[in-house]
Amino acid sequence: MTGRAILEFDRMWAELEPIGRDASTGGYRRFAWTAEDRELREWFAGECARRGLDLVEDRAGNQWAWWGDPDAAPGRGLVLGSHLDSVPDGGAYDGPLGVLSALASVDALRDKGVVPARPVAVVNFVDEEGARFGIACAGSRLITGALTPDRAGALRDADGVSLADALHAAGRDPGRLGPDDEALRRVGAYVELHIEQGRALADLDPDTSVVAIGTGIRPHGRWRLDLPGVANHAGTTRLEDRQDAMLAAAGVIIGARTAAARHCCVATIGRLNIVPGGVNAIPSHVSAWLDARGPDEADVRAVIADVSGSVAELGGTLTQDSWTPATAFDGGLVERLRAVLGETTPLLDTGAGHDAGILANAGVPTAMLFVRNPTGVSHSPAEFADAADCHRGVGALATVAENLAG
Amino acid sequence: MTGRAILEFDRMWAELEPIGRDASTGGYRRFAWTAEDRELREWFAGECARRGLDLVEDRAGNQWAWWGDPDAAPGRGLVLGSHLDSVPDGGAYDGPLGVLSALASVDALRDKGVVPARPVAVVNFVDEEGARFGIACAGSRLITGALTPDRAGALRDADGVSLADALHAAGRDPGRLGPDDEALRRVGAYVELHIEQGRALADLDPDTSVVAIGTGIRPHGRWRLDLPGVANHAGTTRLEDRQDAMLAAAGVIIGARTAAARHCCVATIGRLNIVPGGVNAIPSHVSAWLDARGPDEADVRAVIADVSGSVAELGGTLTQDSWTPATAFDGGLVERLRAVLGETTPLLDTGAGHDAGILANAGVPTAMLFVRNPTGVSHSPAEFADAADCHRGVGALATVAENLAG
Repeated sequence: MTGRAILEFDRMWAELEPIGRDASTGGYRRFAWTAEDRELREWFAGECARRGLDLVEDRAGNQWAWWGDPDAAPGRGLVLGSHLDSVPDGGAYDGPLGVLSALASVDALRDKGVVPARPVAVVNFVDEEGARFGIACAGSRLITGALTPDRAGALRDADGVSLADALHAAGRDPGRLGPDDEALRRVGAYVELHIEQGRALADLDPDTSVVAIGTGIRPHGRWRLDLPGVANHAGTTRLEDRQDAMLAAAGVIIGARTAAARHCCVATIGRLNIVPGGVNAIPSHVSAWLDARGPDEADVRAVIADVSGSVAELGGTLTQDSWTPATAFDGGLVERLRAVLGETTPLLDTGAGHDAGILANAGVPTAMLFVRNPTGVSHSPAEFADAADCHRGVGALATVAENLAG
Repeated sequence: MTGRAILEFDRMWAELEPIGRDASTGGYRRFAWTAEDRELREWFAGECARRGLDLVEDRAGNQWAWWGDPDAAPGRGLVLGSHLDSVPDGGAYDGPLGVLSALASVDALRDKGVVPARPVAVVNFVDEEGARFGIACAGSRLITGALTPDRAGALRDADGVSLADALHAAGRDPGRLGPDDEALRRVGAYVELHIEQGRALADLDPDTSVVAIGTGIRPHGRWRLDLPGVANHAGTTRLEDRQDAMLAAAGVIIGARTAAARHCCVATIGRLNIVPGGVNAIPSHVSAWLDARGPDEADVRAVIADVSGSVAELGGTLTQDSWTPATAFDGGLVERLRAVLGETTPLLDTGAGHDAGILANAGVPTAMLFVRNPTGVSHSPAEFADAADCHRGVGALATVAENLAG
């Protein structure tokens, strides 16, 4: 690592800091195809121009900045990057840390006089969080065909604006949405650096656990639980005569946590719909959404079986809304990163979805690097990584890039 | 009781049945100052005209139909009645049973040739349920001064229409809202017949427990519970690193039920607000509204102390939104009803608010009669009372009226 690359990283970090930041919460509101997003995209284009990289926008709006001609060596390009958008009241690190590390890695390679043997790119994926239109990783899903253009264009934000209209308002042609083989064909390998979204590294040896190599994305599903009750008067109905759907839901929420602990998974109920929802009405129906993930599919299925059993005992139903099997990153690439960064580098899988997972499922050799998160907090204004750890992350990514492209 | 009075009751019941009924749920949506409410009010006016009663609308819009001149004997009038509006998806009995029983009681007295020694009225209170503007018993609260005209006029429904605007649209002058001593001065006693909203009578002797005498309204309060959490990623945050406000709320919901059972009260949590409310976000804050009532104030306070303790242990807060002390109906009137209806007539207090409670708190001698509810269900399309029991209720009210006014 060169001192200049670190200075560049710090400068870019300071420039991004105010964009889309909510003054009251301190969190970020950087949603796809908004004014904040345009400012971030223009900032990214400026950084690429500053480095003489050739910027190409694909059919979904993902920004690829090439060092070297990607079409001179098809299928050979090394791509580094992440995204710049955020969840509502998100932190500063989730996404931007990967994009800025990638730009700083280009600086580091150039300062060392590395002449890449293959084209190298920095990518800024659009709409990774899905905060505005509801589908995470929309940019990578679109170009790989995991999200159809018809479905994507019809997605609407909370104000009823469709993605097609938002693209149009941003000066894009929604008719271009669709799989983009030309963009994908250029990618020989993708390495995404990201802040860790948990505390696995924080609990390991403080010197050797600053950066981890991602091995894959855990299986993940969402289920809808519907629990019945009987509408009745809150003031006059004896406890023994009640069938209170909220009380049933409370038991299921605690039961889901117990089941997750039993099977070494995580389970979250973050959204409920309570009918009728009056302060003095015994709830006649509660819908609850369960998010469950774990190290392997059998464990997650075991959590769901436990929850399903208690829901059925209460006369309710459980419906699967989505299921994403485990995604393994490229074994050869992971091994190579470990050889480069040292055999003691921790290996981590993650419970969060990433564009890296979408590309891996589309057959692109993919891996990730994670930078230690001392509190584990993510998707929150309090998300934080130590500056020295971020710099170590930039160094690791630059080392990997030099090895893969040098 | 005369056969004609029962036939009249059945005719009126059949006429009311379709008004404001939701075809999909079978429940009623009869909200104050709507088209359905106007139809009900006009129907009531027609029934009064049919009986030659003098209809007076007070400053809040309550309809009083007098048999005899109430101003010839101020403070002597005997008033029977209830309300015709409903909660959302309410039942057919809560309210209308009392109004129709009162009208049929007038018929019964006349058929028997009773010449009342005091003026008798049937009242239809407006907006008892508060379903549209949020304040229950708004009509009786307004005329007794328990609700100020300024606050009432500014209340808004879910569409943002104020009560003042709704009154104006219904051809009323919102400037007339306010305490109505003239209307109240006429009332010497008020007896409201109502379907029971629980199963106390259903569990007693089937022959002697068709009708009960109400002795008062139980103390009742509402509290807001605020439970903190830490925003974090649902997929990556280990269970042991979480502070999940929803999980805390689930424990409090179950704890409130346990506390209510311990202290022989009822407690209900029918409404929650979950922040941020995303399917994949660990909740950082949950607000829950607790409705608690019981036979005496100390018991209810004991429930709140238990809940408050567990909320405080979780780092949360408990705030009282409202508190209504116990309301006792008039002791002399209750004794007289018992002497008239028989010493074995059950006595019941109730956990539900009624216009009778508002009048009692304003110093009007007041009592209630309750008709057996075999399922105990109320505020629901499934609310039901046996027709024979309703007829027994009409008979009891007519007997009481004859004794008090004959």
